[in-house]
Amino acid sequence: MTSEQSEAVKRHWAAARLAMTRPDAEQPDDESWGDLTAEPRGVDYVEVEAGGLPAMWLAPKRSVQDRVLLCLHGGGFVRGSIYTHRKLFGHLAKAAGVRALIIDYRLVPSHTHPAQVDDATDAYRWLLDQGIDPAQIAFTGDSSGGGLSITAQLRARERGLPLPAAAMPFSPWTDMEAAGESYETNQERDPFFDRETVRMLAASFLGEDGDPRDPLASPLHADLAGLGPIYIQVGGDEALLDDARMLDEHARKAGVDVRLDVFPGMQHTFQMAAGRAPEANDAIRRMAEWVRPQLGL
Amino acid sequence: MTSEQSEAVKRHWAAARLAMTRPDAEQPDDESWGDLTAEPRGVDYVEVEAGGLPAMWLAPKRSVQDRVLLCLHGGGFVRGSIYTHRKLFGHLAKAAGVRALIIDYRLVPSHTHPAQVDDATDAYRWLLDQGIDPAQIAFTGDSSGGGLSITAQLRARERGLPLPAAAMPFSPWTDMEAAGESYETNQERDPFFDRETVRMLAASFLGEDGDPRDPLASPLHADLAGLGPIYIQVGGDEALLDDARMLDEHARKAGVDVRLDVFPGMQHTFQMAAGRAPEANDAIRRMAEWVRPQLGL
Repeated sequence: MTSEQSEAVKRHWAAARLAMTRPDAEQPDDESWGDLTAEPRGVDYVEVEAGGLPAMWLAPKRSVQDRVLLCLHGGGFVRGSIYTHRKLFGHLAKAAGVRALIIDYRLVPSHTHPAQVDDATDAYRWLLDQGIDPAQIAFTGDSSGGGLSITAQLRARERGLPLPAAAMPFSPWTDMEAAGESYETNQERDPFFDRETVRMLAASFLGEDGDPRDPLASPLHADLAGLGPIYIQVGGDEALLDDARMLDEHARKAGVDVRLDVFPGMQHTFQMAAGRAPEANDAIRRMAEWVRPQLGL
Repeated sequence: MTSEQSEAVKRHWAAARLAMTRPDAEQPDDESWGDLTAEPRGVDYVEVEAGGLPAMWLAPKRSVQDRVLLCLHGGGFVRGSIYTHRKLFGHLAKAAGVRALIIDYRLVPSHTHPAQVDDATDAYRWLLDQGIDPAQIAFTGDSSGGGLSITAQLRARERGLPLPAAAMPFSPWTDMEAAGESYETNQERDPFFDRETVRMLAASFLGEDGDPRDPLASPLHADLAGLGPIYIQVGGDEALLDDARMLDEHARKAGVDVRLDVFPGMQHTFQMAAGRAPEANDAIRRMAEWVRPQLGL
C-alpha cells in the first residue's frame, strides 16, 4: 500500500506531464518539486562558491564536520537546483550525521555534456582542496544526479584525483539510449517518463554529435572496476527501473560492491517526500545506515 | 488587477477555511503556507537558541551584520514557525540588507498569553545581550506576530529595556474583540477570517479569565506614546483591515510617527507570495526602503 504522502509524488509527476504536454495547463513553479519535502529542521544552510560553482553547505546540528556527502540534484539536466533539493539532502545529511554540499552544476540547453560531469568533478576537487579526506566523502544524487554520482568518479579518476569512499545514486538515470524494458512494463504506472521524453532529454544533454554510449554520459558503458561501494535505490513503478537494474548489474560484473533496493509501488525520486511519507523516510534511513560505515563512522 | 501569483494566497486561505470547517477535506500540511514564498536565494539560515527559544538567523550575503530585524511570525498564535516564515523574512532581510532573527515563540493551546509576548521580549533581550544596539533593531511580524511587534515593545519597556528603533507590523491582528467593521465590509472578499473565527482564536489565546482589552494582548488598549516609528501594511480585502486602521489611528493619537499602506485587492499576509507576486515584491521593497534609514543605513 502506497502511503497518501507518497501519492503526492505521483501527483507531482502527473502535473509535470500535463504541464509539458499542454502548455495551456497550469505551469509548475520551478521550485514546486521541493515543496514535496518537509523541512528537516535542525539543519543550517550556507551558500558558498565551490570550484567556481554556486553551492550550499548543509550542516545538521551535531553532525560530524569532516565527513561530507557531495550531492548532485536531479531534474533531467534541465532543471532542479540547490533550492529544490535543499530539504531532501538535508534529511539525508541529518540522518547520516554528516555535512553535505549541494552544487548548482550548469544546465542544459545553455551547457551540454560534459559541462555537468566537469562541474561535479570540480566541486569534488574543491572539497579535497578544503582538506576533506576522499575516504570520508560519498557522492549521492537522484535521477540525472544519480548518473553523475558515478560518471563524476570516472572523470575524477581521469584527472588523477583519488576516488571517494562510496556512492548512493537513487532513481538514477544511467542509460542515454532509454533501452530499458521498464519503459514498457511500467508504462501505466509512471505518469511522467516515457522513452520519447527521455530520448529527447538525452539528445539535449548530449548536444550535436553527442554519443549516447559515451561512458562519461552513461555509466553503463564505462569501466567501473575499482570504484568504491555503490548503494542504489529505485522505485518499483518507475519507467527508469531498468536504469537502476542495469547499473547494478554492470557494476557487479566489474567487481564493485553494489547493493540495489527496489521500493515496491514507488515513483521516480519518491525520496522527495522525506519527512512526510514513510517510504521516503525508510529510504533515507537505509541510505544513512549504509553510508556511515563507508565513511568510517 | 490582482496578479495570478497573489491569487495563490487567496486560494491558500480558501483551502485553509475548507480544512477548518470540513474535517474530511484535505488538511494542509503545517508548512504549506510557506510554499507560497519563493526561495529568496543568497540568504544563509542558521538555527540558534535565543533567550531559551528555538530561533533562526537569516543572513543575506553582503548584509550589514549589526542591524537586525526581530521577526515574529503569524499563525493566530496556534501555528506558523521559523520554517513557514523563513523565506518571507529572508526576502525582507535581503531587500533591507540586514540580518534577521526569527523566533519560535510558544504556541496556543499549550501556552496562553502572556507566554508569547514574554518570549518575544526574551528574544529581544537576547539580541541586546549579543551586543546589538537597540537603535539598530526593528521589530516586524505578520498577523499575530504583527500585534506582537508592538506589544513586545510594551513588555520590554515594563522590564526597563530600551526600545527598538522601529516596528513594521503587516496584516497585524491588534483587536482581540474583533470589533472592526471590515469583518462585514470585506466579508465576501476574505475567504478565511470572520468574527467568530477570530473571537475563537482570541479566547484560546487569552485563556480562562483573559481580558481582550489587556494592553499586552491588544495594543489598541495600550499607551503607545514614546514608541519609535511604525510602518503598517495591510491588504484592502482583509477582514482584518480595520485592525490595521485602528492601530494606525491609535498610534497617531499617541504621537507616534506612523504610516499605513493599504494594498488594494490584497489578502491577509499577501507578502507570503514574495519572490512571485509583484504586489508582495512591492510591499517587501517598501518595507526595506522604510526601515533602512530607521536603522541608520
